[in-house]
Amino acid sequence: MKDFFISDAPRFDNDLVTSYFAVSSLQVREKKSGGQFLALVLADKTGTLEARMWDEIADAMATCAEGCYVKAQGQISKYQGKFQITLQKMRLAAASEVDPADFQPATKFDVDQMWAELRSIVSGFRNEDLKRLVFAFLDDPEIAAAYRAAPAAKSLHHAWLGGLLEHVLTLVRVCVATAPFYPEADSDLLVTGAILHDIGKIRELAWKSSFSYTLEGQLIGHISIAQGMLREKLLTLQPFPDRLRVLVEHMILSHHGKYEFGSPKLPMTPEAILLSALDDLEAKMQHMRSEFARELANGKSGAGMTEWVRSMERPLLNSQAYLNEE
Amino acid sequence: MKDFFISDAPRFDNDLVTSYFAVSSLQVREKKSGGQFLALVLADKTGTLEARMWDEIADAMATCAEGCYVKAQGQISKYQGKFQITLQKMRLAAASEVDPADFQPATKFDVDQMWAELRSIVSGFRNEDLKRLVFAFLDDPEIAAAYRAAPAAKSLHHAWLGGLLEHVLTLVRVCVATAPFYPEADSDLLVTGAILHDIGKIRELAWKSSFSYTLEGQLIGHISIAQGMLREKLLTLQPFPDRLRVLVEHMILSHHGKYEFGSPKLPMTPEAILLSALDDLEAKMQHMRSEFARELANGKSGAGMTEWVRSMERPLLNSQAYLNEE
Amino acid sequence: MKDFFISDAPRFDNDLVTSYFAVSSLQVREKKSGGQFLALVLADKTGTLEARMWDEIADAMATCAEGCYVKAQGQISKYQGKFQITLQKMRLAAASEVDPADFQPATKFDVDQMWAELRSIVSGFRNEDLKRLVFAFLDDPEIAAAYRAAPAAKSLHHAWLGGLLEHVLTLVRVCVATAPFYPEADSDLLVTGAILHDIGKIRELAWKSSFSYTLEGQLIGHISIAQGMLREKLLTLQPFPDRLRVLVEHMILSHHGKYEFGSPKLPMTPEAILLSALDDLEAKMQHMRSEFARELANGKSGAGMTEWVRSMERPLLNSQAYLNEE
Amino acid sequence: MKDFFISDAPRFDNDLVTSYFAVSSLQVREKKSGGQFLALVLADKTGTLEARMWDEIADAMATCAEGCYVKAQGQISKYQGKFQITLQKMRLAAASEVDPADFQPATKFDVDQMWAELRSIVSGFRNEDLKRLVFAFLDDPEIAAAYRAAPAAKSLHHAWLGGLLEHVLTLVRVCVATAPFYPEADSDLLVTGAILHDIGKIRELAWKSSFSYTLEGQLIGHISIAQGMLREKLLTLQPFPDRLRVLVEHMILSHHGKYEFGSPKLPMTPEAILLSALDDLEAKMQHMRSEFARELANGKSGAGMTEWVRSMERPLLNSQAYLNEE
Amino acid sequence: MKDFFISDAPRFDNDLVTSYFAVSSLQVREKKSGGQFLALVLADKTGTLEARMWDEIADAMATCAEGCYVKAQGQISKYQGKFQITLQKMRLAAASEVDPADFQPATKFDVDQMWAELRSIVSGFRNEDLKRLVFAFLDDPEIAAAYRAAPAAKSLHHAWLGGLLEHVLTLVRVCVATAPFYPEADSDLLVTGAILHDIGKIRELAWKSSFSYTLEGQLIGHISIAQGMLREKLLTLQPFPDRLRVLVEHMILSHHGKYEFGSPKLPMTPEAILLSALDDLEAKMQHMRSEFARELANGKSGAGMTEWVRSMERPLLNSQAYLNEE
Amino acid sequence: MKDFFISDAPRFDNDLVTSYFAVSSLQVREKKSGGQFLALVLADKTGTLEARMWDEIADAMATCAEGCYVKAQGQISKYQGKFQITLQKMRLAAASEVDPADFQPATKFDVDQMWAELRSIVSGFRNEDLKRLVFAFLDDPEIAAAYRAAPAAKSLHHAWLGGLLEHVLTLVRVCVATAPFYPEADSDLLVTGAILHDIGKIRELAWKSSFSYTLEGQLIGHISIAQGMLREKLLTLQPFPDRLRVLVEHMILSHHGKYEFGSPKLPMTPEAILLSALDDLEAKMQHMRSEFARELANGKSGAGMTEWVRSMERPLLNSQAYLNEE
Repeated sequence: MKDFFISDAPRFDNDLVTSYFAVSSLQVREKKSGGQFLALVLADKTGTLEARMWDEIADAMATCAEGCYVKAQGQISKYQGKFQITLQKMRLAAASEVDPADFQPATKFDVDQMWAELRSIVSGFRNEDLKRLVFAFLDDPEIAAAYRAAPAAKSLHHAWLGGLLEHVLTLVRVCVATAPFYPEADSDLLVTGAILHDIGKIRELAWKSSFSYTLEGQLIGHISIAQGMLREKLLTLQPFPDRLRVLVEHMILSHHGKYEFGSPKLPMTPEAILLSALDDLEAKMQHMRSEFARELANGKSGAGMTEWVRSMERPLLNSQAYLNEE
Repeated sequence: MKDFFISDAPRFDNDLVTSYFAVSSLQVREKKSGGQFLALVLADKTGTLEARMWDEIADAMATCAEGCYVKAQGQISKYQGKFQITLQKMRLAAASEVDPADFQPATKFDVDQMWAELRSIVSGFRNEDLKRLVFAFLDDPEIAAAYRAAPAAKSLHHAWLGGLLEHVLTLVRVCVATAPFYPEADSDLLVTGAILHDIGKIRELAWKSSFSYTLEGQLIGHISIAQGMLREKLLTLQPFPDRLRVLVEHMILSHHGKYEFGSPKLPMTPEAILLSALDDLEAKMQHMRSEFARELANGKSGAGMTEWVRSMERPLLNSQAYLNEE
Repeated sequence: MKDFFISDAPRFDNDLVTSYFAVSSLQVREKKSGGQFLALVLADKTGTLEARMWDEIADAMATCAEGCYVKAQGQISKYQGKFQITLQKMRLAAASEVDPADFQPATKFDVDQMWAELRSIVSGFRNEDLKRLVFAFLDDPEIAAAYRAAPAAKSLHHAWLGGLLEHVLTLVRVCVATAPFYPEADSDLLVTGAILHDIGKIRELAWKSSFSYTLEGQLIGHISIAQGMLREKLLTLQPFPDRLRVLVEHMILSHHGKYEFGSPKLPMTPEAILLSALDDLEAKMQHMRSEFARELANGKSGAGMTEWVRSMERPLLNSQAYLNEE
Repeated sequence: MKDFFISDAPRFDNDLVTSYFAVSSLQVREKKSGGQFLALVLADKTGTLEARMWDEIADAMATCAEGCYVKAQGQISKYQGKFQITLQKMRLAAASEVDPADFQPATKFDVDQMWAELRSIVSGFRNEDLKRLVFAFLDDPEIAAAYRAAPAAKSLHHAWLGGLLEHVLTLVRVCVATAPFYPEADSDLLVTGAILHDIGKIRELAWKSSFSYTLEGQLIGHISIAQGMLREKLLTLQPFPDRLRVLVEHMILSHHGKYEFGSPKLPMTPEAILLSALDDLEAKMQHMRSEFARELANGKSGAGMTEWVRSMERPLLNSQAYLNEE
Repeated sequence: MKDFFISDAPRFDNDLVTSYFAVSSLQVREKKSGGQFLALVLADKTGTLEARMWDEIADAMATCAEGCYVKAQGQISKYQGKFQITLQKMRLAAASEVDPADFQPATKFDVDQMWAELRSIVSGFRNEDLKRLVFAFLDDPEIAAAYRAAPAAKSLHHAWLGGLLEHVLTLVRVCVATAPFYPEADSDLLVTGAILHDIGKIRELAWKSSFSYTLEGQLIGHISIAQGMLREKLLTLQPFPDRLRVLVEHMILSHHGKYEFGSPKLPMTPEAILLSALDDLEAKMQHMRSEFARELANGKSGAGMTEWVRSMERPLLNSQAYLNEE
Repeated sequence: MKDFFISDAPRFDNDLVTSYFAVSSLQVREKKSGGQFLALVLADKTGTLEARMWDEIADAMATCAEGCYVKAQGQISKYQGKFQITLQKMRLAAASEVDPADFQPATKFDVDQMWAELRSIVSGFRNEDLKRLVFAFLDDPEIAAAYRAAPAAKSLHHAWLGGLLEHVLTLVRVCVATAPFYPEADSDLLVTGAILHDIGKIRELAWKSSFSYTLEGQLIGHISIAQGMLREKLLTLQPFPDRLRVLVEHMILSHHGKYEFGSPKLPMTPEAILLSALDDLEAKMQHMRSEFARELANGKSGAGMTEWVRSMERPLLNSQAYLNEE
């Protein structure tokens, strides 16, 4: 349905294009010569685009608003080094015209394939109780659908559809690779923690139209939501070894590693310590990857320090780009 | 069964007494003149007493150990301003001979009366859902028995049998008195939070022989234990308004008021903010009360600063005693 | 004198109105068609209003400035969902034309009535020394006038005329209701602390034209100002029990509860601990109330999370609105 | 009266000595061979000495206690590298027999000379108001007597009689030497702050028998005591420029430099910033000097790291000793 | 070459001027009447100036960019209380036309004279090893050139050419004046630390066109850069006493005084403690001086509190101006 | 030479044994029956043993001291559940009689084998500059000898001979296993950081007789010592790519991950972030392993919480032992 994407703009400079967009922002402004015009930001999964609509804005104003999907026609041009579009027509799009998947960023990996790899690892568990437990989640159609779709965050790392699954799968792979060096840790237990630790995010986050926190997410948080889900799921799996239950619960509660990050308990078992350290590392590395990509998207060489990264309280350096420039 | 209590020692100076004690500590030491003697600390619910056993210790050594109950006979005397006992006989006590209630500190209030007052307040709820919810806990025989017996802490405030109920009841009374000044807060909801916020302590703490943390208490903590208990109890009360569930859960999770005190969420509703503030205040005031009592027990006038109170990072002053001394 | 208030705008849409306003901000801007216009923000005690003056601005520019009162005539209209006014005339207002009370937010309660309630509580003191002390402040005409008028803060909680008295009275009521549960605390002493703890604010804050800190307020602070006032007042009340003096002084110095909030001492007496806890709670609850009101004023339902509240480092939820929406 | 001092012990090894001592600690212990003996720590201004009294202890036990002065006779000997004394006689000393000055550490400098230097510097002030103000304190007989005698701390830096004056004088000298490099600061104002900043210590500390905090010191603290003293003294000096009053008060309140050190305000003027920095430096350097002396007194070469210094959270190194050893 | 400086604007109101400027910012904006205009900020060492170029902008747009030097002609005028310039001509300036020294702020002191004073102090060292060491740096032509030119910071204190030397020289003077009061510290060693502590800044900062951090500065930091320079320089000075080397290295590493300010070690020697305290004080006092100057430059009387100073987390008060206003 | 080790005690209960020991502590105590005896703690690499010597102690006292090696004969017995030895003879051991390796804990792995594995990994580097750099260290005989022998810490993790190499090798293995999942990181660069990051410990720690910090270690620290070693080594390897030098230096400086742990810079490159996270994890896991071993050595089942682990501010749980107990 949608055949022009915002990232295609360079190939359409000065051309007239017609496509569907999400309206990120819409303001009515006064022309100094009298009358009004519309200043918009349009969006799709590939980025955002400034737009101006100078004439015949009455119908558009009456029907379109922030958060809507629209069908629009206009001319692409470059202004101060960035592309923009001057709209000639714009109308509300019918639900049947748009595929929401076109308007939100999504993982670059194949969801089915990631899902299959995850299930295959669980199938290999030697601990039958843990296998039963994890599959009770993965086989639950409602949970599975959400797990495959959810982003891993509202912003920061893995903030795209499928991001949760992508984050978990990478983490699981690193856990599997690292566990052999630490015989104190049980690999099945560690991987169980890796798969379930963030499962509360499927209720903490909403990703229908845009990424946001649910009210339950704000008042309860994904750590305690996950613990509640675990408690309810375990009622259906009885008998289940109580000590194993305590250890899984402990990994979920402690995975943020510090009180000030919202974990009510510090990690105290080998698996919990490994999980919180590797989870933190994987999130940081993905966050770094996104920062490097953003520098390139902003037209920089990547060989210098990035902008200040607020969540990490420092700038970063793409060491490969820096070395290659020399 | 037990008719001499440690706090009775002043009335028995130089007398021979026979009674049952818990053995808090037991060490075999060498006499310099050759041979061995026993150095013990005996305890009951009224305090502790140093003991020495100089002769015929073989049987006692073979059967008694720390944590046991013993029957002992000896002479009370005063040494460097403190009472002690020189034992002539000591043997292991049979379970049938002792009432554990004699050996642990307990609330000075009537448990049945406190329990009745608590139930009566809940009976007055206008919110039927909350009434159903709280009674689901109070009517659960296993929970009720533990709730009436548990201490509120391992040490610090209300560290005695019935301490949890005593703490909760005082808190409930203060909530009821304070709520009218804050119309944003629903009194029933606030009192529900006051009654349920610490209910996880009945699994976090063990108080059979001495007060200690359970392993589940250490790995999960009473906040998350309570949340799990709530989740499971709610499954039996369906239908239950989901928003009410979220608000109750939020009060439990946030009642420590700060991340660094183990709350995974900060209080964000009027009831949660009131609950965490009044709970903290009530614990501090009780802790202060215990410190003042300890000063008096140590023979001080109470009109000066107390010892340094580590948990509050300051010494305290009993202002009434200070004023009265003038 | 002033008969149109900014909160009346909805009833005057598209009408021509004439009234007095305080000028919150005034900027000269260039029209792109040449020439200049004025962009203003006008204010009175009910809110603020954007204004534009396109023509004949020379006289207005020459005489009016930020912080002045003006008489202005113009047409109310709605623009992007908010009301504004297009001015045709504006001139400086004479002092005799305006009542400053029309331009600053004020308590919604009756000051005389609050004052009488406060005095009545003090009259009931059984401790004659404390009664003498508190009335020495309340009977001091200069102090009384300021105490009845002062806001409790520059912004945040109770930032309106009479706010200090309103805050103190609520706090006193809560102290009176709570004291019975804590026999360690002397109610008269506690209430004395509640009445005097913030009295330094009458010199820390200025509220003539707008709310601001005095230079003495910034360099000395209301805690130490209050302590100085107490020292000077006590010289006129000799003999006065010195231990009582120390306890009152301690409550004032410690009422912020933590060093990092500017208290040079931590609360160490029952009264000081109660005062700092209840003062903090009452300020937070009032702050929460203002946030909820602001959400409604911004046209929200109030059933969702508020904006991020910076001073509390969290968003809030109006639980009643949330429940009622269901 | 007292002609043997504890620091003389090396010269009296194995000799019988008779002298007066303060009793720092006294314990009755059991001989294993039956009977009791006394284990004491004796003290005078030059140090402390372990003592044992094996026989005829009944009279001594009945009359002597911790905190008393005693006359004692015994034999000096060396035990595990440290000197001790084996007592043969000990009796309570009459007040007329002892000079308390023999039993407390005192400044090594001449108090009259330090006092004269301080007054001479004030005499040189060009600002007559500040001169009046400072002399109002120095000429007050009660204040002067205490100022000349007080220690600067209970322990840590300058914890000896005259220590306050010694600390202040060194600080004043450094202020005078440093001020020329910072023309923003008024030297008279800075020196006024240096002389008055710690004057509250004469009421915060007690140094009659041993060094301790007064109750007022604990509840109010020397910063606020000083501010109160200033307020009362100023009432006797009217008229006094109000702005000068604010600046002096600000220096006193802010001189600890940080909220967490008990200053209710941060230093905001050139003089306050200089004062708090130089005061902190002078205290640290004196503390370091005491640590170096203690290492030597403990028989170390001084060329290695000192013990961990808790108040500074680090060990220290005497760089001169370290270099000289090479 | 450059004969009009931005600070001269008041003398040229409404005049046509021609001069060289650095282009701080350049934006192309749309006229609402159609077409484009340039909005610029021009700069030289005396300040910055808003500029507008309405016509014939094509050549200027094609050749000039942010960071360039330009030759420009235009008319000075005053707009909303600030001067601006309306440009008629603007072209790129050739390198031969401009002296970069005209475009960056520089110390107000004579660099040669400061340099001579510094060398003279080192010549007076009694410690020949330290004299050799310091001159090895000061006599190194590359280091000397950079040391004389470098700013002491990117922004904050001494952020101007020659600022490093100015900061060091003031610090050295204060060290020389203070050392006599602290006999534990060796003056030569202290002054060596003062001269070398910030020498890494000549590689941490770049000041060619504007002040910025080098990549090495960001990844390594001036503390560790200085330590590396010291290590390499010492290889050329063998034999050099190893203990002296350790003490100098320690002063460099610890001079920020706290871990959180990037010092890998806390100061532990008398010289290191003095250096870090006096360095911090000198930087704060200079920063304060700049804030006071900025208030005056902004047209304020200087007698009130300054704006909030973020790096010091407080506003400041120019006490002299405050007193003089009275 | 030494054929009885302390860990052999259970097999020699009540036997007479003769062996060499290090004297950890030696105290002369008084027998109450008159005369003196020796109370000692003896040590070898397998643990420590309490000892008593009752008779004929004169010679032993005259020649043996803490820190010496002794030859001793005595009888093993069990006292209060722990083994001890009652000595009959003890004399100083000649240097030729003892192998220091018998008296310090050492790695359980083969040093030659670990060393070979490390070199083999470096041989596989594709980056020739990094290979040259690392071998410059590993081929330096003085460095290699120390690197193979050094412990990784004074106490806490890997506090045994060969502990540094053991820690580094495990870390290198984990880096090699993890790097493939993070293509932003260069594996050779990461491994270089892993091998060099702690190399300063060979000068920070001394391990001749016991494990301690050198004075240089305390004043400079292993991070900055390593950086100095790198600087000096690089002078011998010129030309060396400067950017590679900066990246290696950055990994060393930042590997503690936080300012408060003594890193002057935060990790900002992919390799530095990975290194600091995996180094911290490996140290924690090894520390946990030691705690678990200590619990077992103390005779516990290992299925409960360990003692409080101060460096981690929590107790730990051996999850495998806990599960297996069920």
